[in-house]
Amino acid sequence: MNFIRKIIDTRIKNDESFFVELKKIIGFTPKNLSFYKKAFIHRSVKELDKETGYPINYERLEFLGDAMLSAIIASYLFNEVPSGDEGYLTQMRSKIVSREHLNELGRDLGLLRFVKSNVASSKFGENIHGNIFEALVGAIYSDRGYNYCKKFIYKRVIDPYVDVLKLEGKITSYKSIFIEWCQKTKKDFNFDVYEDTGNDTVKHFSVKLYLDKKIIAKGRATSKKKAEEIAAKRAYYAFQDEISTF
Amino acid sequence: MNFIRKIIDTRIKNDESFFVELKKIIGFTPKNLSFYKKAFIHRSVKELDKETGYPINYERLEFLGDAMLSAIIASYLFNEVPSGDEGYLTQMRSKIVSREHLNELGRDLGLLRFVKSNVASSKFGENIHGNIFEALVGAIYSDRGYNYCKKFIYKRVIDPYVDVLKLEGKITSYKSIFIEWCQKTKKDFNFDVYEDTGNDTVKHFSVKLYLDKKIIAKGRATSKKKAEEIAAKRAYYAFQDEISTF
Repeated sequence: MNFIRKIIDTRIKNDESFFVELKKIIGFTPKNLSFYKKAFIHRSVKELDKETGYPINYERLEFLGDAMLSAIIASYLFNEVPSGDEGYLTQMRSKIVSREHLNELGRDLGLLRFVKSNVASSKFGENIHGNIFEALVGAIYSDRGYNYCKKFIYKRVIDPYVDVLKLEGKITSYKSIFIEWCQKTKKDFNFDVYEDTGNDTVKHFSVKLYLDKKIIAKGRATSKKKAEEIAAKRAYYAFQDEISTF
Repeated sequence: MNFIRKIIDTRIKNDESFFVELKKIIGFTPKNLSFYKKAFIHRSVKELDKETGYPINYERLEFLGDAMLSAIIASYLFNEVPSGDEGYLTQMRSKIVSREHLNELGRDLGLLRFVKSNVASSKFGENIHGNIFEALVGAIYSDRGYNYCKKFIYKRVIDPYVDVLKLEGKITSYKSIFIEWCQKTKKDFNFDVYEDTGNDTVKHFSVKLYLDKKIIAKGRATSKKKAEEIAAKRAYYAFQDEISTF
């Protein structure tokens, strides 16, 4: 009996910690954990659904999540880029949902740590990160519907990483624009970068951006470069009138 | 003054009739007509947005509608075909949203009659029907959001035309199954087909399906064949226990 209780206790504890971690990642309360668990089951587990007998793994959720991601990005671009025709919008969407970008998103969120698998994670290949990210989107849609799915994609994809000016090639780096502006207008600046992993499993960096000894923007991300770029972008928008006309 | 009033009156009247027709097609009340008007403007009109100066035509809405249609069909298949892996679901979706099928949907709804264009409609090519259908989906999303978009796609695509058994190749025609069953079990049947265009602009047919002199199902569509198939499908599901075991 004690043995069984121990198993059940461990299971509940595992569920609890999964719930807590997941909530941090998605930004709201998951209702039905079973959808999310499926999003992290690799096909090598060969688990079958008790009711239907069909295999359970993340691949079907990946199909669903991919479709939702495409639709939500399409709707974002439709509204944000009124000058673009349908060919241009399609092109921009491809850049945002590129395999490379999705892998980066999944990797930065440290999704791999949740994956249940019977093969070594070194055998997964690079695309696992993006695939799991899409499966997570599918799980959110199944659990909470379209609007929460949209919320998640804004929080994790659009707000931190999608920039219309960059996508259009009008700006390649906010950091270099900011530095150029400081140099031309003889302003003193400093990117103060430090490791700040906090509660995250994946290593994070924070940046404080100083202009004439005053903090004007902050940034936090999984690499120094990304954190600096986020802070520089915030500074760019804070001083947009001055920077864009210098 | 009278001349100007006449123009305004005609415009309001046109808007009114567009509103009424549109409501019939989409199945609910449109809120902002301007989205729907855009869905029917051909690029040859060369209209520019007064505020932004960008061209107005249906092509951007088509991009948005295409994405929403794909997502909604993906979610439908995800739930309805639990046995299918992601490759299979992708394949089934391609069949449903094929150019040919979308053209048929647009043609059956008579969407072409709303199109504003500076070229003759004979020059449009066959794909205009499907393109406008997708643009209409995009307009619905812009006007009323995801759930209404889903409602429309269920009403006009999934409920009447999407059949998992047919897509899986398990059934090719409900009519022939029904007839075979009647013949083997010595039942008397009759497909009573008649023209029934009603208030629609496009020609429609209705079918009453009799079994042993009693009406057991009805169907209505833009061709005799489609109407018969709809009635036979309804009869199939009404007598499923008997038909599937005979």
